[in-house]
Amino acid sequence: MKILWLYAHPEPRSLNGYLRTRGIAEATALGHEVIRSDLHAMGWNPVVSAADGTGGTERFLVGDAGHTAFRAGRLPPDVTAEQEKLSAADALVVQFPLWWYGPPAILKGWFDRVLVKGFGYGTGSRYGAGALAGKRALTVVTAGARASSMAPRGIHGSIDQILWPLLHGTYFYTGMAALPPLLVGSADRATEADADAAVAALRARLRGLETEEPIPFRAESSGDYDDELRLRPGVAPGASGLEAHLSE
Amino acid sequence: MKILWLYAHPEPRSLNGYLRTRGIAEATALGHEVIRSDLHAMGWNPVVSAADGTGGTERFLVGDAGHTAFRAGRLPPDVTAEQEKLSAADALVVQFPLWWYGPPAILKGWFDRVLVKGFGYGTGSRYGAGALAGKRALTVVTAGARASSMAPRGIHGSIDQILWPLLHGTYFYTGMAALPPLLVGSADRATEADADAAVAALRARLRGLETEEPIPFRAESSGDYDDELRLRPGVAPGASGLEAHLSE
Repeated sequence: MKILWLYAHPEPRSLNGYLRTRGIAEATALGHEVIRSDLHAMGWNPVVSAADGTGGTERFLVGDAGHTAFRAGRLPPDVTAEQEKLSAADALVVQFPLWWYGPPAILKGWFDRVLVKGFGYGTGSRYGAGALAGKRALTVVTAGARASSMAPRGIHGSIDQILWPLLHGTYFYTGMAALPPLLVGSADRATEADADAAVAALRARLRGLETEEPIPFRAESSGDYDDELRLRPGVAPGASGLEAHLSE
Repeated sequence: MKILWLYAHPEPRSLNGYLRTRGIAEATALGHEVIRSDLHAMGWNPVVSAADGTGGTERFLVGDAGHTAFRAGRLPPDVTAEQEKLSAADALVVQFPLWWYGPPAILKGWFDRVLVKGFGYGTGSRYGAGALAGKRALTVVTAGARASSMAPRGIHGSIDQILWPLLHGTYFYTGMAALPPLLVGSADRATEADADAAVAALRARLRGLETEEPIPFRAESSGDYDDELRLRPGVAPGASGLEAHLSE
């Protein structure tokens, strides 16, 4: 497979830097081709601006101008380069430290700028189908918190629910299969042994990248949602949490 | 009160720009002093870099260097300026369009860079207490999706759960009272009448800013969590979703 390794950490000597190096080596040893986006090293600009085609002509309604730029082939070259990498990839590995319970800004802005309408969405289908259908996405995330506090009933919420905007709202929305994230907890006090245990866990996940079962989110086309895009009363009756969007 | 109006939208002619202008006028008319951070207009840099004091000397463990820079008074001036604004404020209004189910990168990076250890957290208490205790935070968010699809059981998840990393993981973590967010749906097809209805909703929320009940998240000090930072078995028994972290 071709894997796009999308990475965001400012410091190569970090635990993340170590995991990236060892993970890319493992993926290569498994016979995959690894395409790389090291956002800090690239000096990636995460800020959507007028250069991205924002700034429509109608009052209030300025959101679709990026779509216009995409269709006209006028997106900035840094954006089109990332779109080409993603188009070429069969799988995406997204690796980052959890900051304020989400991706660092430099990574959030990769999705903001790269997945414009017409390229990442807005092609007719979404949630289980869409522009990026057929690709798989594995999240590799480090956190200072211990793993127990990001398990179900953990004080921070479970890592799957913390990452809902990424797993469901980005990967699955655009048609990608969202694999369960790999969480490396207690990262800000990792010893050499902890780092090597994390590498072993990452290697195991990379070996399963092609075959592992994705998170069973309900597809929009499943019939589970009504015309107002709410779960039908008979589906996960009475449930109001995010887990109601998992099929049994 | 003093209100810090933290705003992220690239286009002043947008619905967001309209809401911001009218919202600040209302807050001023109510007698509040409004401190402003218009991130795109300021050219705010959202990317954490070595200039922020990252890059510790120990292998793997590079996370606390921002703390060192904070204690030594060596944070960049753009960061300290925002810290001073936040310190002066009694309430925070955070206004943005929802992109990929989260804040735009430029706003995410405000939290990444401004809330360093020692200033935003790491002072001994968190979740209902902490460095920013006593402040209130109101989120004003526009979305292309219709409101029904972001209600409980909506396909996108409820807006409270989509924004969990901000409401619980950022505001409440640092001690701020998280007010229920104001969601303006169907924003990419707003008419003049829709925009004025949104302004009316915003004005109502601003009138309640000092008195409105916050989201009743469980405080870390409540006794509801065990030593592994998981909900005790008798608290919301059997529940595994984010709603288990709301007190009855």
